[in-house]
Amino acid sequence: MKVENIGEFGLIDRIKAFSNSKGHALGIGDDCAIIPQGEREILVSVDALVEGVHFFKNAEPFLLGRKSLAVNISDIAAMAGEPKWAFLSLSLKSGTELSWVDDFLKGFISMADEFGVELLGGDTTKAKETVIGVTIIGENPIGASVKRGTARAGDLVCVSGKIGCSYAGLKALELNLKGYQNFIEAHINPTPRVNEALSIREFATAMIDVSDGFIQDCNHICKQSGVGMKIWWDSIPFCDADFITKEQMLCGGEDYQIAACIDRRFKDKIEKNPYFTIVGEVVEGKEVVIVKDSDVIEIKKCGYEHF
Amino acid sequence: MKVENIGEFGLIDRIKAFSNSKGHALGIGDDCAIIPQGEREILVSVDALVEGVHFFKNAEPFLLGRKSLAVNISDIAAMAGEPKWAFLSLSLKSGTELSWVDDFLKGFISMADEFGVELLGGDTTKAKETVIGVTIIGENPIGASVKRGTARAGDLVCVSGKIGCSYAGLKALELNLKGYQNFIEAHINPTPRVNEALSIREFATAMIDVSDGFIQDCNHICKQSGVGMKIWWDSIPFCDADFITKEQMLCGGEDYQIAACIDRRFKDKIEKNPYFTIVGEVVEGKEVVIVKDSDVIEIKKCGYEHF
Repeated sequence: MKVENIGEFGLIDRIKAFSNSKGHALGIGDDCAIIPQGEREILVSVDALVEGVHFFKNAEPFLLGRKSLAVNISDIAAMAGEPKWAFLSLSLKSGTELSWVDDFLKGFISMADEFGVELLGGDTTKAKETVIGVTIIGENPIGASVKRGTARAGDLVCVSGKIGCSYAGLKALELNLKGYQNFIEAHINPTPRVNEALSIREFATAMIDVSDGFIQDCNHICKQSGVGMKIWWDSIPFCDADFITKEQMLCGGEDYQIAACIDRRFKDKIEKNPYFTIVGEVVEGKEVVIVKDSDVIEIKKCGYEHF
Repeated sequence: MKVENIGEFGLIDRIKAFSNSKGHALGIGDDCAIIPQGEREILVSVDALVEGVHFFKNAEPFLLGRKSLAVNISDIAAMAGEPKWAFLSLSLKSGTELSWVDDFLKGFISMADEFGVELLGGDTTKAKETVIGVTIIGENPIGASVKRGTARAGDLVCVSGKIGCSYAGLKALELNLKGYQNFIEAHINPTPRVNEALSIREFATAMIDVSDGFIQDCNHICKQSGVGMKIWWDSIPFCDADFITKEQMLCGGEDYQIAACIDRRFKDKIEKNPYFTIVGEVVEGKEVVIVKDSDVIEIKKCGYEHF
C-alpha cells in the first residue's frame, strides 16, 4: 500500500496513531499543539510548502515569503492565539539566485512585522526542489485557546469575511481574467485573521481557519467534536465573483478566514461584531449539511487533500 | 550571485541579517533559540533532512527515523537543555510505501521514548524527494542554557566520548569494510548526549554539539565568543579506527558528542566526570589551533558545509 492510497488525512491519522503524547498537551488533529507553561500556554504549528504543490515554480518570492508565514500565523489565529515567534527552514536548489532569497526574506519579515512575530531561527540545506518549512509559536493565557473538538449541539456557527475569494483569485490567474486584482490578492497575499479570532475568543466554543475549504474545515470541527452542522445557504457571505460557482466557493481552499462555533447566549455579541456573520448552527449528527429553503443541498466531496 | 557562491553559513548569516528579533530571545547563530517563559526558558531548533543530501535514498527507515530525531535532540543537548516535545513535517514522494512510513515513525518514536520526548504535531505533503522537517522544543531553568558565544580566555576545553567514530562508520559503509559495526552504528544510529551535557551544565561557559566536525564546531564557539582555542593533540580522544587518518577524525562530522568550555576552577569536577576529557584551553585569538609537542599542526579547511 502506498501513501496516495490513504490520502493526506489518513497519513496524519497514522502519525497520530504512533504519537507517544501523554495527553497533557493537545497534539495532532488540531491547528496547533498546546503546551501549558505556568500561567500561559504555548501554541506550536509546523508546515511545509513544496514547489509545484503549494506554489508555482515562478512564484514571486516577496509574496511567497509573505504567504509562507501568513498561512502559519493563520494556524495560531485558528486557536484564537497570539502569534509570537517563527523559525524558517529553507531547502533550496543549487542555482537559486541570492536575490530570490533576499526577496523571499523581505516578504517573510514584512508579514512578521505586521503581526508582531519575531524570526528567531533558521536552517538551510540544498535540495532538488524548493521546500519552505515554517514553525510558528504563539501564546495564550492558560485555558484560553479555542480547539476544534469542543463544539456543542445548540451553538451557532459563524465565519469571518467572505468565502471563496481566494479560489476566485486562483481561477482568475489560471484563466488570465483581467480586472479581478482584489481576488488575486486574496489568493497570493492572504491576511491571517488574528484580530478577528481574538475578538471572539471568550465566546467561541470551537474554531478553525478556512484553509482546506469552508465545508471541509467545518467537517473537521464536526469530526473532532462529534457533532453535525446545519449551514444556511442564504446566510453564507459568498465572494462577489461571477465566474465561479457558489459550490466552488464552498469547496475551494485558502480563504484563511476564521470559522467558529459560539455559545448561543452570546448571539448579540456576534451580531454586533464587525468581522463575523452567523451562518448556521451546530446540531446532533456527524457532518455538515447545507440547507436552502428547508431543502438539503447536495455538495459532492470537496476540499483540498494532498496525495 | 547564486546560493552556492556564499555557502551554507553565508546563507544563515543572510537570514540572520534579515531577522527582526528584538534581542530578548537568542536567535540565529546558536544551536537553539531561547525564549524566556517565567521561571523557565524554552529552547527551539528546526532542521530539515533531505534525501540524497542528509541520507541515502535506500536508508533503512527505522534508523532514519531514529537519527532524524537524534540530531535534533542533540541541538537541545548542545545548550545543556532537556528535550521535551517534537513536531514532524514529512514531505513524501508519491509511491512511498506505507510500511516505509510506519517503520520511519517506529524509529522516530523509539528515539523519542528513550529521551522522554513527546511527538505533538505533524504535517504531511507530497514532494518529488523526501524531506524530513523536525522541530524540537526543550526546556531549562531560566538562565541555565549554555550558549556558543560565552567562552572566555582561560577556560578549559573538553569533549565527551570519542571523536571521529561516525566518520569511520561512514567510510566503512562506503568502502564496504567488514567488522566495524560499532563505527557504523555511531554513524547510522547516533546517541544525542543529553545526560552528558546536563552533567556539566553548571560549570560550562560555552557548549556546542559536534555535528559539522570537531574543529569546525570549536571554531563556531571561537567565532561567536571572540576567542581562540589551543587543542592539545595528545589529549584528543580519537576513535580507535585505523583506516582513516586523525585529520579525517577531526574534520568528519556527525559525532554528536558535546564540546564545551569550562571555568578552570572546576577542573577537578571535569577530571572526575565519567564522560568528558579535557583537550585544550581557550586563549586570546580568533580560531582553533592544534598543538603537538609545542608545534602547531596545520589542518586544512575542513568540516561539512552545504551548497
